[in-house]
Amino acid sequence: MDDSLREAIFRGVEREPLARTLGMELVELAEGFSAVEMTYVPETMDNLFGRAHGGAIFSLIDEAFETVCQTCGGVTVALNVNVTYVASPESGARLRAEAREISSTKRTASYDIRVSDREGRLVATCQALAYRTGKPLPFL
Amino acid sequence: MDDSLREAIFRGVEREPLARTLGMELVELAEGFSAVEMTYVPETMDNLFGRAHGGAIFSLIDEAFETVCQTCGGVTVALNVNVTYVASPESGARLRAEAREISSTKRTASYDIRVSDREGRLVATCQALAYRTGKPLPFL
Amino acid sequence: MDDSLREAIFRGVEREPLARTLGMELVELAEGFSAVEMTYVPETMDNLFGRAHGGAIFSLIDEAFETVCQTCGGVTVALNVNVTYVASPESGARLRAEAREISSTKRTASYDIRVSDREGRLVATCQALAYRTGKPLPFL
Amino acid sequence: MDDSLREAIFRGVEREPLARTLGMELVELAEGFSAVEMTYVPETMDNLFGRAHGGAIFSLIDEAFETVCQTCGGVTVALNVNVTYVASPESGARLRAEAREISSTKRTASYDIRVSDREGRLVATCQALAYRTGKPLPFL
Repeated sequence: MDDSLREAIFRGVEREPLARTLGMELVELAEGFSAVEMTYVPETMDNLFGRAHGGAIFSLIDEAFETVCQTCGGVTVALNVNVTYVASPESGARLRAEAREISSTKRTASYDIRVSDREGRLVATCQALAYRTGKPLPFL
Repeated sequence: MDDSLREAIFRGVEREPLARTLGMELVELAEGFSAVEMTYVPETMDNLFGRAHGGAIFSLIDEAFETVCQTCGGVTVALNVNVTYVASPESGARLRAEAREISSTKRTASYDIRVSDREGRLVATCQALAYRTGKPLPFL
Repeated sequence: MDDSLREAIFRGVEREPLARTLGMELVELAEGFSAVEMTYVPETMDNLFGRAHGGAIFSLIDEAFETVCQTCGGVTVALNVNVTYVASPESGARLRAEAREISSTKRTASYDIRVSDREGRLVATCQALAYRTGKPLPFL
Repeated sequence: MDDSLREAIFRGVEREPLARTLGMELVELAEGFSAVEMTYVPETMDNLFGRAHGGAIFSLIDEAFETVCQTCGGVTVALNVNVTYVASPESGARLRAEAREISSTKRTASYDIRVSDREGRLVATCQALAYRTGKPLPFL
């Protein structure tokens, strides 16, 4: 992945609406790898039971998915995401989602994505599948 | 589902942090059925490409999942969620997620959840699996 | 779906190796719909616990998936399959998998597939995603 | 995992009906890890297009899932399996599925399962979720 692509994705996430809404931050990016972090803020992210809403955890997963997908340099869109919830994070926890490319063909790519807290406790695991459109990234 | 349970879930969603953050609204609830709506607001929900972020769409799905799960009257938690994205919604679209119980055993329950816009265009489909803890709902 | 396509798929399944190995039979086929049946034979299909092996039940699901996919008239291949097991069938049960198209775009299609026994008891549910290659069916 | 459990699972697979039907062989087993192999035999495993049927590949995945699940020493049953197909194996290929435990709680466990050929080419990836019944293994 060349530097201009890397920079463009970092800058894109800084301006990205949902990333700003939930405080998601891209922290690492390499070809086939991405790490995104978010602090679990109960006041804006809780569910009915005072635990982290699945939608908040999933958004972090999806941000890692979206960014790792683009490291190939062309627009790649989500087809399918399968999430298994393992444990609820503690209030205020800094959560980190790491996405790794598992396979890549001309048209599709699959990823393994895991969310954990600073102590390495696993929160959720994900298997994700994307479609490569072949179009160039619009923000490059 | 008795009225007090129904009212408690409606009131819970009104106060629920992530539901407020994203403007999600519970609109229908019956035993084994739930419908939740949200307006897709690009300024707070977009992704890198100016389309609705998967995390925003998923949050709506998860809200329907969470609410339908509780219609059995005991705490039921998400185990696994499988989402297939079908089409991007248009800016400002009013999105509706409908969750229907497909199966229910003593310990687990599975649901079919679909997101569509007001014109009935399908945005995403989901198969979700939950675990019944057997504990009473804390907010009843 | 025209008659020659329909006949070709029926004839194809009659000769299909895995369908013969497990005794799977295509029983209904229409555009976007397929039904496949199989008798659960413990002597060839059981798992370690004397119940139907997940692989046998999944094969029936996948046969419905494979046949419904082709009703569009071009080669369509499986990308992702998500199965939730609901209940174990009884020995000797006649199992039926029904696949219905949920969405279809130029490149992908998604399906809902359910397996049940003759009494209508649900055995497994499935959400499946396929990729349309655009190539004509080779056996037409 | 003690030796008697390990031996019991190996012996169980040797007698297991579907494993015999498809020629699946348990080759490695440790706490939280299992490897199962199968030769892809077109004459009994092909689909409509002369490629390996998804049901055959899935059966191998499910055998790895089933065996890794029991290494905890109690009956553990499949709840959900999510499979992404990456590439078709070549005729006669020796396929190997490796299952690794990703997380484990009192009631559930999740696994990462991958199928590849002898050259290490990835055929399919899987995320699987199981429920621990708490019952002792019947064949011990």
